[in-house]
Amino acid sequence: MTTPLTRADCAALDAADPLAPLRHQFALPEGVIYLDGNSLGVLPKATPARVAEVVQQEWGVGLIRSWNTAGWIDLPARIGDKIARLVGAGPGELVAADSTSINLFKVLSAAIAIAREDHPGRRVILSERSNFPTDLYIAQSLARQHGMELVLAASDEIAASITNDVAVLMITQVNYRTGLLHDMVALTAKAHAVGALAVWDLAHSAGAVPVDLTGADADFAVGCGYKYLNGGPGSPAFVWANPRHASRFWQPLSGWMGHAAPFRFDTDYRPAEGISRYLCGTPSAVAMSALECGVDTLLAAESLGGMPALRAKSLALSGLFLAQVQARCAAHGLPSVSPAEAWRRGSQVSLACPGSGYAVMQALIARGVIGDFRAGDGSPQEPDLLRFGFTPLYTQFVDVFDAVTALSAVMDSGEWQEARFNQKAAVT
Amino acid sequence: MTTPLTRADCAALDAADPLAPLRHQFALPEGVIYLDGNSLGVLPKATPARVAEVVQQEWGVGLIRSWNTAGWIDLPARIGDKIARLVGAGPGELVAADSTSINLFKVLSAAIAIAREDHPGRRVILSERSNFPTDLYIAQSLARQHGMELVLAASDEIAASITNDVAVLMITQVNYRTGLLHDMVALTAKAHAVGALAVWDLAHSAGAVPVDLTGADADFAVGCGYKYLNGGPGSPAFVWANPRHASRFWQPLSGWMGHAAPFRFDTDYRPAEGISRYLCGTPSAVAMSALECGVDTLLAAESLGGMPALRAKSLALSGLFLAQVQARCAAHGLPSVSPAEAWRRGSQVSLACPGSGYAVMQALIARGVIGDFRAGDGSPQEPDLLRFGFTPLYTQFVDVFDAVTALSAVMDSGEWQEARFNQKAAVT
Repeated sequence: MTTPLTRADCAALDAADPLAPLRHQFALPEGVIYLDGNSLGVLPKATPARVAEVVQQEWGVGLIRSWNTAGWIDLPARIGDKIARLVGAGPGELVAADSTSINLFKVLSAAIAIAREDHPGRRVILSERSNFPTDLYIAQSLARQHGMELVLAASDEIAASITNDVAVLMITQVNYRTGLLHDMVALTAKAHAVGALAVWDLAHSAGAVPVDLTGADADFAVGCGYKYLNGGPGSPAFVWANPRHASRFWQPLSGWMGHAAPFRFDTDYRPAEGISRYLCGTPSAVAMSALECGVDTLLAAESLGGMPALRAKSLALSGLFLAQVQARCAAHGLPSVSPAEAWRRGSQVSLACPGSGYAVMQALIARGVIGDFRAGDGSPQEPDLLRFGFTPLYTQFVDVFDAVTALSAVMDSGEWQEARFNQKAAVT
Repeated sequence: MTTPLTRADCAALDAADPLAPLRHQFALPEGVIYLDGNSLGVLPKATPARVAEVVQQEWGVGLIRSWNTAGWIDLPARIGDKIARLVGAGPGELVAADSTSINLFKVLSAAIAIAREDHPGRRVILSERSNFPTDLYIAQSLARQHGMELVLAASDEIAASITNDVAVLMITQVNYRTGLLHDMVALTAKAHAVGALAVWDLAHSAGAVPVDLTGADADFAVGCGYKYLNGGPGSPAFVWANPRHASRFWQPLSGWMGHAAPFRFDTDYRPAEGISRYLCGTPSAVAMSALECGVDTLLAAESLGGMPALRAKSLALSGLFLAQVQARCAAHGLPSVSPAEAWRRGSQVSLACPGSGYAVMQALIARGVIGDFRAGDGSPQEPDLLRFGFTPLYTQFVDVFDAVTALSAVMDSGEWQEARFNQKAAVT
């Protein structure tokens, strides 16, 4: 173990950080160290003015005309093209739409249909046991509908579980609990080798780690707009289909925005060519515009090295956090459940904190350090967790240092045992 | 035919209108007479400040904490309870969520499942031939999935088509083309009499006409947030299930917000009791808050007579429009395709304008009168239409008079034939 960095060392890292100017894009509240961009990204400074323009000018004055004059009708494709640049997809291949859950329903339906055309006897949808629950819930629904079975493997048993009874592999690229980064290239290749399709949820990877859907030859992908893309609470999500599949299947949420000619008001559904058929109802122009501002904060990094540069900083931040916790909080346990090897980590670190995790996080938030708490199932395999996200766009090295100082103080003082930190809120 | 009203008569009607103060809730642009609230409602004055608060304070400062502290988690139910008051539903029976198309997929799935439990052999989903296309597209998708048949009847043949092979009747209460108001009580009763379920789309009736889902004993309903509810472009929609059905079926879009305990992050889906199981993914707090401002503009009418008073004014406005067109534009044809009897009309009037409808509407918009154009299929039964919506919250009697003056001028001058009015935009 090397000597841990001092706060001055961290300040020096910030001073030398070529990505530091990107932080000025954000309206960060005073007195807060925000390490929860993996749950809800922070507000870009450009967003309030853009939202006000959409509300007051485009809606208030332009009214119905703004579908044409303000380009509302183009928002899903225009923003989709921007997101595509972050995840290794081509222009016209990805659209912003609906929620992650809804989009997963669309692509998983398509993947199941295609897989069963290719291999009619297969009944298995394979996923990760600790995948984000909404993914599992949507898969359960479709498994029921299609007489299939959702099989869940532990994180390190996924590759071995890709056998030739698998129809569809459905994985979130970065595990929401541990921050484990799955190998999209290897798992997709393994799926294809047994004749299965690979559906990827990029909720915790789009904007957090370099993603190359085309290079990995993935089949379908969805992702979230309100985490690393900074689109705002409940922002629209996105959906991608590999061009070889995009027009192959009529996805079941066949709303009018996915019609080949929505404004002809035909009686019969005729799906648009390509990814546009994955649109459904009318999108919120306000929410879409906020999402665009969020995505733009990532595109602003393109001239500074783009996702690889952001990735390097993200790993430096999470590595610093792990080293600082080990050096300064070791007496309190708090073992990391995140991979020690940088290349296997997403942009977050989770510390096991069985039993007291909720109260510890509340006490930490009271000190101005915002991470979040994720309950476990009580087993040693899935303990209660303190989660910390390290968004390289706006997190500084001194933030990491100061966060560990606060965590150390919370643990040393035992203040987390106070009653006020132990009253659970509706959302934890 | 009685003597048509003069502009002074109309001004007198406005002066005597007890609902006139409601207009001051809206930010109406200068120089525009807006008769398209049936497509996109106008901006409430309260919305920009509320949206700014959600963006800058709740998101920007509160960040992830606002799920609790700002009550984001309660938005779907809180706004749902407000909408419920407009459509004759009880508290806790209705939620704001997703889009109309997505919500229709949920309730139609449920209705089909229930209908086929009760009458396994039935294969027919009955709807109206000129129902809004997205409703038909979603029904087509579910018909395919369940091996059923979507049968379409002409508007005046629906009642006679409710025979005992019908599993589900799916009707938009007010027809988007003609403005015909269907009799929810009678059609629901007829459906029930043959053992079918009745699913209602309230897109053009919620906030436009008194709706009594409970009184009609309807089975399921969905509706739109951005038309008469003034929630903004692409606003979240809403969904209602009769309490006797709400917990009976696991709707297929089983996202985490519909889970009984979403923040326990259980691996297995366990649907919430009641209408909450019709939630799916994470809703946009910004778009939801704008919707709430829109709904509040209607609740503001409660002390002035509520929906019955709004209905009376709506019919007075559309009746005035019909009389004025007949008196002042008769030479140009433009026959109404909307019901002449007030009680059969929603809150809009459509004039047939075969061939030239698009250009006439563009010319009218250039004169500051905004309605919209809906293409027909070229047949005499479904001609091209000029649509005019009469939103009683903000439309004045003089607006109706002036709109007909402009329409008359467009027709008398023949200016609609100019090339600039004949270039079709992406969205028409």
